[in-house]
Amino acid sequence: MSKKSALHIAKGVKEAPFINPNWKGAKRLKQDTDSLAEAVLQGDITALSAAITIAESTSPDDEIKCRSLMNRLHPKSGGAFRIGISGVPGVGKSTFLEAYCSFVLNNDPDARIAVLAVDPSSEWSKGSILGDKTRMESIGKSSRVFIRPSASGGRLGGVARSTFEAVTLCEAAGFNFIFVETVGVGQSETVVSKLTDCFLFLAMPGTGDELQGIKKGIMEMADVIALNKCDGDRTNQAEQSAIQLQGALQLITRTQDHWQPPVLQISALNATGMEEMWSALDRFQRHGQLNGWIEERRREQQEYWFKSNIGALLFERMSEKETWGKESDSLLAQISKGEVSPFEASRRLMDKILA
Amino acid sequence: MSKKSALHIAKGVKEAPFINPNWKGAKRLKQDTDSLAEAVLQGDITALSAAITIAESTSPDDEIKCRSLMNRLHPKSGGAFRIGISGVPGVGKSTFLEAYCSFVLNNDPDARIAVLAVDPSSEWSKGSILGDKTRMESIGKSSRVFIRPSASGGRLGGVARSTFEAVTLCEAAGFNFIFVETVGVGQSETVVSKLTDCFLFLAMPGTGDELQGIKKGIMEMADVIALNKCDGDRTNQAEQSAIQLQGALQLITRTQDHWQPPVLQISALNATGMEEMWSALDRFQRHGQLNGWIEERRREQQEYWFKSNIGALLFERMSEKETWGKESDSLLAQISKGEVSPFEASRRLMDKILA
Repeated sequence: MSKKSALHIAKGVKEAPFINPNWKGAKRLKQDTDSLAEAVLQGDITALSAAITIAESTSPDDEIKCRSLMNRLHPKSGGAFRIGISGVPGVGKSTFLEAYCSFVLNNDPDARIAVLAVDPSSEWSKGSILGDKTRMESIGKSSRVFIRPSASGGRLGGVARSTFEAVTLCEAAGFNFIFVETVGVGQSETVVSKLTDCFLFLAMPGTGDELQGIKKGIMEMADVIALNKCDGDRTNQAEQSAIQLQGALQLITRTQDHWQPPVLQISALNATGMEEMWSALDRFQRHGQLNGWIEERRREQQEYWFKSNIGALLFERMSEKETWGKESDSLLAQISKGEVSPFEASRRLMDKILA
Repeated sequence: MSKKSALHIAKGVKEAPFINPNWKGAKRLKQDTDSLAEAVLQGDITALSAAITIAESTSPDDEIKCRSLMNRLHPKSGGAFRIGISGVPGVGKSTFLEAYCSFVLNNDPDARIAVLAVDPSSEWSKGSILGDKTRMESIGKSSRVFIRPSASGGRLGGVARSTFEAVTLCEAAGFNFIFVETVGVGQSETVVSKLTDCFLFLAMPGTGDELQGIKKGIMEMADVIALNKCDGDRTNQAEQSAIQLQGALQLITRTQDHWQPPVLQISALNATGMEEMWSALDRFQRHGQLNGWIEERRREQQEYWFKSNIGALLFERMSEKETWGKESDSLLAQISKGEVSPFEASRRLMDKILA
């Protein structure tokens, strides 16, 4: 029963929809989300997919379903170690994930891994030319792995919200490792660092110039740094790059947790350095749990999303006011004539609306 | 007179403050911003620096000065060709700017160039480890060049707003080429693409993997693509990379302007390809002006900033309400107990505040 209902809700799924002969309108909706939530809690992958599809959907119906699902499942979330992965395009994030997840699956019989992707570029293009779906094939076949290539965010709150909800749903479904990979460009690092417990930054051993370019922002965000592609000719370069990175890291004092981010040398291609990665991440998680950083970080993140979503909602609700449209149009006309700056115009609109 | 007033306002400037013996309170403030605005309009670099410092300041006094300055100078802005520059750290953005600006200065006697930097990472770290101030030395000495290394954004509206205001001020001061360089990581590309007429993306000729990694988001944003470091051993690679990039670009249809972004091969180090760059940018500007894209793009950008700043202002003003603090605290407590998701909590707060 629960499975069938899940399929019914999953609009992207190919099976024919299950038609309930005892259709009861609104009650039906409640039943659907209840049984879907139940199926997610039992670790049903099809139900999990369907639930994430609902979280990503922009239809008002799905929004109601999503709220009810999230209210049910949010209290069951929080059980995974959430790891964000970032690095410039070409650094080998997908190859790394494939190698590392294989290692984890082989070494930890209890590991269940979810891989999610954050792609803010999809707000422009609704997708990437070259998806990572086709990569990560070897791990994708395991029943202990769930890969969701690209969470697009059409609804209010955007990419961040649908990714947050996807993390919650994966945790409710019993996944204990969640990787959130940044895809594309733009604000992905910021979003990912505010959704995860641990931020893993992949870099390439290269010119000193490249390392200098890693600005303080990302160095402060990174909890673990790995130099990927440390193979073949690059081995010597790698050593030097690692020393330089460690030097740069020493300039940063992390008062909040006193964690010293390790710099690892790995090769995802040859699957070397995976054990060191495992122990670095494990050490971070254990220290973070013992000292309460992870809990503290999650608290701060939730506060952040709470506040940032309020901004978006306020805009949505206030713009439904009658005076809004008229004032806003007249100010936009002044803006386009170059009479007033957009920032000044927004202040004037506020003065009228909230008068 | 105008210079002295400018110096008085510029808090970062080392000269002793000028004390007006005829202090007249509020009238004085008005005089100050008026004479500062006048000095900016006359192209006075010290005044321009002082005005940008005011735009970046977080003090309430400076905010009032800034509004009055912007209201005065905004109608005088819009005269420059605004070029955004992006690319991964290490691609050589500063070296390129140095080589290209030297070329422009030598070939266009009327060129006056401003170089601004957008650094969203400063919202975390209030600055980068390695500023670009010390680079670009050769062009920095010219009186026709104005370099402002890092616009930090402490005030509401943040980096975007202070950069927008810096662009306006530079235009009011008569600069006709404005480069806005992305520094650091995070949302800089998005911000820069929404502040400029033309988006120049610098890439490195390298592995195909690296090129594949350039996702559709940035390809759609880019108006001109340049492969930098096409020198020495990389010449062959460069040719191949250019062909691949051109192939990827053909998958994108730009319905709004039908512009086909060119892929250039340059070497900032050897100052080769600068003429091609000049002609590519010039072609973009002429087509854009003839067909009205640039105007249209600026209109859309201003609309975007108008709307996004409204969100921030709404938040600021509503949070001053009495019920806000109590409700917000109680919801935050529920969030931290894991009872409710931050997104759901924000909806509940809205329901209470706007009831």
